[in-house]
Amino acid sequence: MAGKANGTSGNQVRIAILGASGYTGAELVRLLARHPNARIVALTGDRNAGQPLAQVFPHLRALKLPDLIKIEDVRWDGVDLVFCALPHGTTQKVIAGLPAHLKVVDLSADFRLKDAAEYARWYGHPHQALELQKEAVYGLTEIKRAAVKAARLVANPGCYPTSAQLPLIPLLADGLVEEDGIIVDSKSGVTGAGRSLKEANLYPEAAEGIHAYAVGSHRHGPEIEQGLAEAAGKPITVTFTPHLMPMSRGILSTIYVKARNGAKADDLRASLLRAYEGEPFVTVVPQGESPATRHVRGSNHVHIGVFPARATGRAVLVCAIDNLVKGASGQAVQNMNVMLGLPETTALDQQPMFP
Amino acid sequence: MAGKANGTSGNQVRIAILGASGYTGAELVRLLARHPNARIVALTGDRNAGQPLAQVFPHLRALKLPDLIKIEDVRWDGVDLVFCALPHGTTQKVIAGLPAHLKVVDLSADFRLKDAAEYARWYGHPHQALELQKEAVYGLTEIKRAAVKAARLVANPGCYPTSAQLPLIPLLADGLVEEDGIIVDSKSGVTGAGRSLKEANLYPEAAEGIHAYAVGSHRHGPEIEQGLAEAAGKPITVTFTPHLMPMSRGILSTIYVKARNGAKADDLRASLLRAYEGEPFVTVVPQGESPATRHVRGSNHVHIGVFPARATGRAVLVCAIDNLVKGASGQAVQNMNVMLGLPETTALDQQPMFP
Amino acid sequence: MAGKANGTSGNQVRIAILGASGYTGAELVRLLARHPNARIVALTGDRNAGQPLAQVFPHLRALKLPDLIKIEDVRWDGVDLVFCALPHGTTQKVIAGLPAHLKVVDLSADFRLKDAAEYARWYGHPHQALELQKEAVYGLTEIKRAAVKAARLVANPGCYPTSAQLPLIPLLADGLVEEDGIIVDSKSGVTGAGRSLKEANLYPEAAEGIHAYAVGSHRHGPEIEQGLAEAAGKPITVTFTPHLMPMSRGILSTIYVKARNGAKADDLRASLLRAYEGEPFVTVVPQGESPATRHVRGSNHVHIGVFPARATGRAVLVCAIDNLVKGASGQAVQNMNVMLGLPETTALDQQPMFP
Amino acid sequence: MAGKANGTSGNQVRIAILGASGYTGAELVRLLARHPNARIVALTGDRNAGQPLAQVFPHLRALKLPDLIKIEDVRWDGVDLVFCALPHGTTQKVIAGLPAHLKVVDLSADFRLKDAAEYARWYGHPHQALELQKEAVYGLTEIKRAAVKAARLVANPGCYPTSAQLPLIPLLADGLVEEDGIIVDSKSGVTGAGRSLKEANLYPEAAEGIHAYAVGSHRHGPEIEQGLAEAAGKPITVTFTPHLMPMSRGILSTIYVKARNGAKADDLRASLLRAYEGEPFVTVVPQGESPATRHVRGSNHVHIGVFPARATGRAVLVCAIDNLVKGASGQAVQNMNVMLGLPETTALDQQPMFP
Repeated sequence: MAGKANGTSGNQVRIAILGASGYTGAELVRLLARHPNARIVALTGDRNAGQPLAQVFPHLRALKLPDLIKIEDVRWDGVDLVFCALPHGTTQKVIAGLPAHLKVVDLSADFRLKDAAEYARWYGHPHQALELQKEAVYGLTEIKRAAVKAARLVANPGCYPTSAQLPLIPLLADGLVEEDGIIVDSKSGVTGAGRSLKEANLYPEAAEGIHAYAVGSHRHGPEIEQGLAEAAGKPITVTFTPHLMPMSRGILSTIYVKARNGAKADDLRASLLRAYEGEPFVTVVPQGESPATRHVRGSNHVHIGVFPARATGRAVLVCAIDNLVKGASGQAVQNMNVMLGLPETTALDQQPMFP
Repeated sequence: MAGKANGTSGNQVRIAILGASGYTGAELVRLLARHPNARIVALTGDRNAGQPLAQVFPHLRALKLPDLIKIEDVRWDGVDLVFCALPHGTTQKVIAGLPAHLKVVDLSADFRLKDAAEYARWYGHPHQALELQKEAVYGLTEIKRAAVKAARLVANPGCYPTSAQLPLIPLLADGLVEEDGIIVDSKSGVTGAGRSLKEANLYPEAAEGIHAYAVGSHRHGPEIEQGLAEAAGKPITVTFTPHLMPMSRGILSTIYVKARNGAKADDLRASLLRAYEGEPFVTVVPQGESPATRHVRGSNHVHIGVFPARATGRAVLVCAIDNLVKGASGQAVQNMNVMLGLPETTALDQQPMFP
Repeated sequence: MAGKANGTSGNQVRIAILGASGYTGAELVRLLARHPNARIVALTGDRNAGQPLAQVFPHLRALKLPDLIKIEDVRWDGVDLVFCALPHGTTQKVIAGLPAHLKVVDLSADFRLKDAAEYARWYGHPHQALELQKEAVYGLTEIKRAAVKAARLVANPGCYPTSAQLPLIPLLADGLVEEDGIIVDSKSGVTGAGRSLKEANLYPEAAEGIHAYAVGSHRHGPEIEQGLAEAAGKPITVTFTPHLMPMSRGILSTIYVKARNGAKADDLRASLLRAYEGEPFVTVVPQGESPATRHVRGSNHVHIGVFPARATGRAVLVCAIDNLVKGASGQAVQNMNVMLGLPETTALDQQPMFP
Repeated sequence: MAGKANGTSGNQVRIAILGASGYTGAELVRLLARHPNARIVALTGDRNAGQPLAQVFPHLRALKLPDLIKIEDVRWDGVDLVFCALPHGTTQKVIAGLPAHLKVVDLSADFRLKDAAEYARWYGHPHQALELQKEAVYGLTEIKRAAVKAARLVANPGCYPTSAQLPLIPLLADGLVEEDGIIVDSKSGVTGAGRSLKEANLYPEAAEGIHAYAVGSHRHGPEIEQGLAEAAGKPITVTFTPHLMPMSRGILSTIYVKARNGAKADDLRASLLRAYEGEPFVTVVPQGESPATRHVRGSNHVHIGVFPARATGRAVLVCAIDNLVKGASGQAVQNMNVMLGLPETTALDQQPMFP
């Protein structure tokens, strides 16, 4: 059978995926299926426990995989690393209960915000695992590589924050843009909402249209700001507007900044080229080209464009990612690779799929 | 046959549509088919001259319509009003050659910019019909109703400018927002590019993805600015970024403004409610609701939302239109109704089609 | 406000729509909004009772409509005609409880099958309103016009059966095709599944793909067969395969038949042209043209094509409808018009919307 | 950089791709980028000669690839194997002119039909390379593996024929279905039409709709029949109807057959299970499951379902492939692997991408 998920080589890391019946779970399986150093030994899905994953995701039927089980049925002594793709809130309780020998990459929002009060404010309840929250490393790999390498628990970044922070952090760190007045206008595909049954995600509701949602109130706002503030060395408030549009995968963030000290678009571009030189997944596209989500689809790639605005002293940044890959499962595998000292591109070398 | 396009009542206005084989041409026919005071007497389409329109647009086969002819074969003495849906550049020559008794609604960009130098700069050649350019009335109906009523030649607004100007003009006129730093982030369906054969408009290229284009250089930028400057009483430079996304119809413009003098989102909303009170086509949606292109699809409706941004003193406006209707052919019919003293909603009372 | 749903003229029929928060309910409202002889006086939606319809369907916010109420709160003495857009099963109980003065057009499957045993077999329970089932007239308007005119209760046909029966009934009635071996391969848009929250109907599951479902076991199979058997004067078993594909609206049925007695595709076409001559909504498209769902979208139109197959003695019929209009709410209004002696095209004269 | 297309190991096969600026060309590059035994040394694209491939396909910008050149500029002595993705007609002249040492996998239709008269009839001109036509091996890999292994020139099958022949050939070979009356109703994504600029392929024309085309006259009809006739040992005429639907990739063929000698759907399923046992790419899906194009998207997988029809003695087969992979470039790489004696799944082990 093509693409077996598990081999038998003795030095493979044994992986459990918690919440494998969601889109990010399936995407982890798709990517790990080709990872030579990883073997999936447990898949959990509470509602589908007892079923093969192929029942839930027939596109993965060619893989030899363990059946879905309940979390409480995982034998943790046979597991080395856990990907946690559970809903937020649930996650912190589950992870707090895991044995200490496990490395964890958490794809939920539970451990991303470092400030406990900020967490409580945005998520509506006090954090249940404050010690872990302190320990967790924010896994924006290109920016946090060293910390990720040493981490036991990585908080995998949100999809919108990944697309907003990667273009902005180097510019703020280099002092090239004003901290004030940053606007992030993001357009997301529908998988960003997960596989949950909401009317807005039905085909006839989502196709052939677009709308903004959670204007001024999306939880990824403070996550974006946390990363930017760290780069700038001071608090930053961002105007962040997410939109839902008819594509399955992808986020395009169009970002509006004011340049500092007469910096031009070319200076911004130069800063980004420096920051991401040699990075396998981040490309600053040539001048005049425009990043498109379709050009990164299915891959861990990030395409960033820099444009002068007509208004003097302003610039426009455009960043394209696949929300399920660099915005979720791909970056999670990238973080795993870093945590394990493996080449960072392992199992992430699939080219984007276009058309 | 259902929905005849032409009746025989003696007092019907006789209509010619130049460029009927494009999407805006077809949309004019669709809307006028139910207009009790209008009769289509000529349809031109140079490449398809001699064919019935149903050959080019089979969805209109139920209508009794004149065959497509060449422009030079139109008998102008039997025509009262012309909709011109020709490419820019060509248009000014054609309209300059029309008999003086004709009223004209022009859907091209040729007569929108009042400043001859600005036109030459953005369109790459001097205007060929400067007298007409001066005479032309910019047909953003809700704003220019009185002038449209008296006009012989109406320059029908562009789709992006319609979606950007309607929310901004009242706020600028009321002095509620800063002229500086206005950002218009627009998302358009693919018909915005017309029926022309470009690779970017092929289904496999446009589906399931989004990209920005003409960043900082789109010709609708100066058109937007012209309208805003008039409202503000001073020049305005806007940062305008259009995006191409997978839907056939629709524009959503997300607009970022800085409020003046401590004005809140509620003050902005109140200004817009005042400005559009009693307007049949413009709705300021209730607080907490988010305009969506699918809610105006196929109709002449405009939905505007107002949201506070998290950053103090900033607000977000969202405007949804159907680019082929309020952004083109519907507003053209609306302008015709005004020019002829007919009820403004005549033939524009179709409800949006969802899903 | 454009397109008021209700006027005040004394001789308007007073309409109640039961189940107005589904897609067919919304479509009834869209169409009736322009009906000069009908006034919507009650809209029911159990889960949304107390809300304006615009809460559930913001695209209809321009209409003045009664708020949603529960069925038990409808005052029947103020109602003349009921459109019932409730789930099957529920429907028969509700309709059995309605006052006798009401005319009813039922959009569910409850009264379509005339044979009580057949109903019980396919729907898994005995029919709860056998008297009504006998009384009900199957409302395939072009075929049953006289019976519909006299009916009190019309069972509005299913979407697939409408698309399959209209091309086949005249050919069977004329003895031009074999009763044996008829194959109906149908492709449906996602609204065919209603607004219900099923995983298969989520955008990421339905977009960019197609699959067959209920192969050999769809409940519309016996409904198709019932109509064909009546035309042929003998029982018919059809091979019917529905497919779900990424479009919001539309059904295309590709139908494979064996010609009888050396009949050619041209003979089949002639039969259909005769059968539908003068029909306002059914068009046999010219030879060489191919019906497309997009050419009937949003309208009550039916496009039928006839093609010779390469295999001798076989032909291919293709039928395109909008499943929400001719396949549901449009045909329901058409039936209402017939029941009330109104011109059949009233409120159904909107042209298809393309693109 | 992730996923380099070319390594430097001495024993790599040197590949030229002729016609690399089309979708099948890009897909060959995507797949070969991960092939450890192949190195792309030449890419041709006449209109884009001199440009990097990333100019034409920005999604491939991470790969190190030779620039596009004209065919006449390829240095054939540095090439071992050619993938030819040129238009039919052109292809036979180009291939006839290639040096004899080259192995060739041709993705056009030029060498698929073995009968010269049949070719002339369907393609409108006599074949220009009759000797090669005789030599060419039809590369439906699972059926023709031995011949492909020995071939110098492989005619890669068409997308529709692949989806129709794989389910039917074993059944015909086993004598389980009638040769007469086979119906193939196929639904294709838009990339099936290539990247050519045709109005029907524009997003607004192809989205949200479906139509049949070339009914009874598509050139893949005789190609399907050739393969079936060979399996059945007698001529077969198939009724084949292709449809164009809104998805970028994928073909679903729904096939209607009459069983022979009382064979049941289960017998047909058993035959297919036997035929494809151990095949890495062909899966007969479990009873009750329905193949879907989205479950094979981006992969070389083939999913086949078998269903009983309600009409006695009839069955329905459903086959899903990705038209660009198993229907074109994936099968081409599979054939290359066979020709070179490499493991057949090399570079084809990517799992399907869903959603």
